[in-house]
Amino acid sequence: MYDLIIVGLGPAGLTAAIYASRYRLKNLLIGKILGGTITLAHKVENYPGFEAISGLEWAQKTEAQAKKLGSEVVYGTVGRLEKTNDGFKALLDDKRQFEAKTLILATGSERRRLGVTGEEKYQGRGVSYCTTCDITFFKDKIVALVGGSDAAVSGSVHAAEFAKKVYVVYRKDKLRAEPIWVEQVLKNPKIEVVYNTNITEILGEEKVSGVKLDNPYNGLAILALDGVFIEIGSVPGTSLVVGLGVGLDEKGFVKVGEDMATNIAGVFAAGDFTDKAQVLVQMTTACAQGAIAAASVFKFLKGQKAPQILGV
Amino acid sequence: MYDLIIVGLGPAGLTAAIYASRYRLKNLLIGKILGGTITLAHKVENYPGFEAISGLEWAQKTEAQAKKLGSEVVYGTVGRLEKTNDGFKALLDDKRQFEAKTLILATGSERRRLGVTGEEKYQGRGVSYCTTCDITFFKDKIVALVGGSDAAVSGSVHAAEFAKKVYVVYRKDKLRAEPIWVEQVLKNPKIEVVYNTNITEILGEEKVSGVKLDNPYNGLAILALDGVFIEIGSVPGTSLVVGLGVGLDEKGFVKVGEDMATNIAGVFAAGDFTDKAQVLVQMTTACAQGAIAAASVFKFLKGQKAPQILGV
Repeated sequence: MYDLIIVGLGPAGLTAAIYASRYRLKNLLIGKILGGTITLAHKVENYPGFEAISGLEWAQKTEAQAKKLGSEVVYGTVGRLEKTNDGFKALLDDKRQFEAKTLILATGSERRRLGVTGEEKYQGRGVSYCTTCDITFFKDKIVALVGGSDAAVSGSVHAAEFAKKVYVVYRKDKLRAEPIWVEQVLKNPKIEVVYNTNITEILGEEKVSGVKLDNPYNGLAILALDGVFIEIGSVPGTSLVVGLGVGLDEKGFVKVGEDMATNIAGVFAAGDFTDKAQVLVQMTTACAQGAIAAASVFKFLKGQKAPQILGV
Repeated sequence: MYDLIIVGLGPAGLTAAIYASRYRLKNLLIGKILGGTITLAHKVENYPGFEAISGLEWAQKTEAQAKKLGSEVVYGTVGRLEKTNDGFKALLDDKRQFEAKTLILATGSERRRLGVTGEEKYQGRGVSYCTTCDITFFKDKIVALVGGSDAAVSGSVHAAEFAKKVYVVYRKDKLRAEPIWVEQVLKNPKIEVVYNTNITEILGEEKVSGVKLDNPYNGLAILALDGVFIEIGSVPGTSLVVGLGVGLDEKGFVKVGEDMATNIAGVFAAGDFTDKAQVLVQMTTACAQGAIAAASVFKFLKGQKAPQILGV
């Protein structure tokens, strides 16, 4: 029986573990991918204290820090969360079960998928969900970015610094990214926007060789290219928490108070998939939420405010 | 003319500078002490990514990071802030003046004083407000720490590494610090906790020689010692912002919205002295607020939401 189970190995979950251990709460961290979404960033320059660090390296350091302070870490997929008489139970897909008095949910977000033939087959072989992570592999190649909002449009400007030709394939007739990005796209000779068009299939052999369009472009139903970057946003990873009865807002984010409490007593949430995080989705804001959630667990279990220690 | 002047060199100000530079805002950081309150911590173990780092070292790294990204840093004391026709002016005590379209105020907090006779007289001659800063001067001496929360209790553990005898003088009957620290205090033979007691006067000649107690300890109304460390918390450093008309809450903290906006258009605040920070006053929460404030300045100046760049 743990005091606390934290689900999710991203910045929010890792920071929650550090704080929980500092508070001497017996805590277990369960997750699939160390670092979560931050592993998609090969170089982070805006996390205070590191001039530049990869998301993965940061996560490794932070996991080691949490473990040294006393957190236990289990790699696995939580398939279900259940309320028990004296707390909660996490049931893993591999049949392992863990129990705790409280939960911090920090399962973050997942990249939205196109859902077309070839997408899964060619992932990592030309299909990517993170332009900034993978574009360097496409120097002097032809790529397409799918989407019309910030990620796709700002990503295409970045992609044009490497690729020789960048298509932006968008289902609507007007890009909806921030004007500053749209301007840059429209004046960049390497970037061509393909409006009113959907990709219906990703083609290839060993690697991606092209995409099928539902609306011929320059008379062609197939666009020949080397890489497809799918940048159509993220969806909060809330399937697990919904099963537990945790309340969401109208956009599907977990509703939390300033103390990161959800609607269920003893269940807290932190990070990208909370409504409070949407003001600025960043590593540093996720970390702050994780710390706050752990302090709230302390208060919930001990009946007193968590101490705010500066250092040793 | 800068886009943004940030006042305060603590975690909130430094992170605001990093984000402002990443957003390509011309920004100037002004402050007295690099790191602010965090320099009081000689060892921070709960900042995600560093197993252990001194507050000062973290601040030095983060200042270098901000400068590399394009932030300018000026050391000095801002004596007054004024509204101008097209923004704000910061007037330094040494007569330098700087102007910007927007402000982020991050002046943090100041140490709370006991308010007893002798306190001011012996400051620097036995009276200190920072155990971690000054304890090394008291090797093999007798010292008292005043307070019962984290700073005093964790400070006493640290003090016992240097001093031969450490009293913790606390007005209540139970220490309210993190359990991990309380445990260490109670089992440390060098540390003695003096409960239910206030210091009413600090005594000495050239230097501190003892303190008067309102409740005799072991039959004595005077505790003979060489140093007194006053660790009874902080008060928000809002004198500067009040002059500008920034609104405070009933406890004296700067009132901010979720976007860190104050009641004055173009003026944002972040860090320990905001009401929003009070849920958990920590480095990581101050950093998050600094990042959010910079994103809000971007939105204020550009009329559009700041991009949320994961990495490069």
